[in-house]
Amino acid sequence: MNVDRDEAPFAFPGLDRLFHERARLGIVTSLAGHPEGLAFAELKRMCGLTDGNLNRHLSALEEAGYVTTSKNFERKRPLTTCHLTRQGRERFMSYLSALEAALQEGTRAAATGPGHLRERKA
Amino acid sequence: MNVDRDEAPFAFPGLDRLFHERARLGIVTSLAGHPEGLAFAELKRMCGLTDGNLNRHLSALEEAGYVTTSKNFERKRPLTTCHLTRQGRERFMSYLSALEAALQEGTRAAATGPGHLRERKA
Repeated sequence: MNVDRDEAPFAFPGLDRLFHERARLGIVTSLAGHPEGLAFAELKRMCGLTDGNLNRHLSALEEAGYVTTSKNFERKRPLTTCHLTRQGRERFMSYLSALEAALQEGTRAAATGPGHLRERKA
Repeated sequence: MNVDRDEAPFAFPGLDRLFHERARLGIVTSLAGHPEGLAFAELKRMCGLTDGNLNRHLSALEEAGYVTTSKNFERKRPLTTCHLTRQGRERFMSYLSALEAALQEGTRAAATGPGHLRERKA
C-alpha cells in the first residue's frame, strides 16, 4: 500500500464513491444524525432532492448494505422510513477520515500554489 | 439563500460537481500544488489514472475554464502540459471551504448517532 501511495499520492482510494457524491453525502449525513430513522418526505426535504433522485440514490445505498428502508402505514397512508445500517455508519466514518485527509492535501496544495507563482515572477 | 439553507440543510450546493469527483479532486489537487504546470504523464501517475480517464476528466475541467493544456515538443516527442487557471484555483478554494463545512456536518452527525441509539436501548 505504501508503494501505491508513493506512486499515486492523489488517487484517494479511501473516497468511497457511494458516499463521495453530493446528494448521497447529504442523505447519509441526514441519516447518520437520526438513528431512529427518517421519513422519506423529511429526508427529501433535508437534502433538497426530488422523489426520483432520492429513490435512485437510496437504491444504490441499499444495494451496498449501507441503508435500509421499511414501509408502514400511518393513518392509512403509506410511510417509508429510512435508516443507516451499522455497516453504513462504519463505512461513512472511514469515508469521513479519508475526506479529511484529502481536504488537507487540497488545502495545502491550494496554499502553496500562488506563493510559488509570485516567487517565479519576482 | 437562508430560506433554502433552512429548507434543505444537507443539499450542499457549494460542492461544485466538477471538483466533487474522486479523480478530478486528485487532478486539481495535483495541479494546484504545481503552478508551473504538470506533464500529462506525471499527472497520470500522481492520480493513478489511465490515459483515457485522465483525458476525459481534463476535457471536463477545460470546458469549465478551470484547466488549460498546452502541447509542445521535447526532443521531438510530443509533451502535453496541464495548468490550473486562476479561475480554477479560485473556484477550487471555494469548493474546499464548502467541503470543510460538509465534513463538519458529517462528523457531527456521525458522532451524535450511536450515542443516541445507546440511550434508546438503555
